[in-house]
Amino acid sequence: MTRFFVEKSELLNDRILLCGENAAHARVLRLKAGEEVVVCDGAGQECLCRVESADKDLFALSVLQRRAAVSEARVKVRVYMAHSKSDKFEHVIQKATELGASEVVAFSSSRCVSRPDEKSLKNKLSRWQKIAASAAEQSGRGVIPAVRTLPSFAAVLAEAKETELPMLFYENEDGFSLSDAVKGKADFASAALITGPEGGLTEAEVASAREAGVLVCTLGRRILRCETAPLCALSARMFAAGEF
Amino acid sequence: MTRFFVEKSELLNDRILLCGENAAHARVLRLKAGEEVVVCDGAGQECLCRVESADKDLFALSVLQRRAAVSEARVKVRVYMAHSKSDKFEHVIQKATELGASEVVAFSSSRCVSRPDEKSLKNKLSRWQKIAASAAEQSGRGVIPAVRTLPSFAAVLAEAKETELPMLFYENEDGFSLSDAVKGKADFASAALITGPEGGLTEAEVASAREAGVLVCTLGRRILRCETAPLCALSARMFAAGEF
Repeated sequence: MTRFFVEKSELLNDRILLCGENAAHARVLRLKAGEEVVVCDGAGQECLCRVESADKDLFALSVLQRRAAVSEARVKVRVYMAHSKSDKFEHVIQKATELGASEVVAFSSSRCVSRPDEKSLKNKLSRWQKIAASAAEQSGRGVIPAVRTLPSFAAVLAEAKETELPMLFYENEDGFSLSDAVKGKADFASAALITGPEGGLTEAEVASAREAGVLVCTLGRRILRCETAPLCALSARMFAAGEF
Repeated sequence: MTRFFVEKSELLNDRILLCGENAAHARVLRLKAGEEVVVCDGAGQECLCRVESADKDLFALSVLQRRAAVSEARVKVRVYMAHSKSDKFEHVIQKATELGASEVVAFSSSRCVSRPDEKSLKNKLSRWQKIAASAAEQSGRGVIPAVRTLPSFAAVLAEAKETELPMLFYENEDGFSLSDAVKGKADFASAALITGPEGGLTEAEVASAREAGVLVCTLGRRILRCETAPLCALSARMFAAGEF
């Protein structure tokens, strides 16, 4: 079902108006009176609505049902990916949103080749958040994952530790796997997945993660690209949580 | 460790010469005498080698150890993806190779918008196979997945049925999940993962898959793009098989 994101306060009304970009989108879809759509606040609440009138610039909807978003994962998984070259992070934002991530966070690590400065990060963040919003709409999510950046690997560890199951994926780890990490913890409510840049994380970074209590895991005997690893780990984490 | 693919017959010698594209690649990597590399036949056999001499156009290696490829998955998973727009299939070939697929197969289904003709398919196949070879090299695989096409959905079903665990992923299925499908069968030696094009598979196609004994599964409550679904399913299948 078609889905629109609006401001939180809009959802309190019994009649919702789609305007601006939402109206433009509704026009493209040729939305007609009588059709049903979902309107969400992007933070977990949504309304099932019926189109009452469809004008060129304004679409009026009546609220049929108010509910918690039905498509959100029970487990909140944050994806932490080191800054990488070209548009790999954009790719990961889009796919991680579809796969149900709660947040997608880029960070700087020792071997990052890409080191965006503050001004370029500001522009990028606005673009990145739009990618998440669009992917959330297309995949039928009720929450738009927050896209953020962190200035250091230490900051990532500090945040990840706050989740119930912080994990880091390292190509030189071969004993301890993601399966080992989630054993008996598959229904834990939160998790963090940390992956490195093209050149990998350094031994010192991995050691500091272990010290912080982060589980260092392998994703198998094949070396995954830096944009493949987080999505593989996220798919497996959601699968282990019984999402599909 | 750096890895080169050569003809099967080359692997029988005690001395292996890298020439042509392999030599060009070795030059780029500035391979030096004394370094160790892996040489594979792309079909599951490989040799650990030492560089004996490094010339501009020719690199001579001595074989230290002959072995079965150590990075191959125990489960053989074939990925069947309907023809899709732009370069989505190329993306899936690259990622599915990293994730350990044994074969990647494109097919035509009712709602495919992209319908390459025979001539264009021939060109594409050669390009697609190169993408698989390059991804196999980078991810450290001992097997280059075969990339093929099938002319119809019926042909896909006929092939998929030959595997021990044929599965199809359908956005309108909500009861039966991939977890249900692999329960008690995680160590089955072969599997097929079938996914549709942008517009999805038709109800009739899904019904014919059920009749053929293919398990129709959901990948969760979020709608995945046609290029995301096969990679999510493959990641989860490999995870369930104990690959990581």
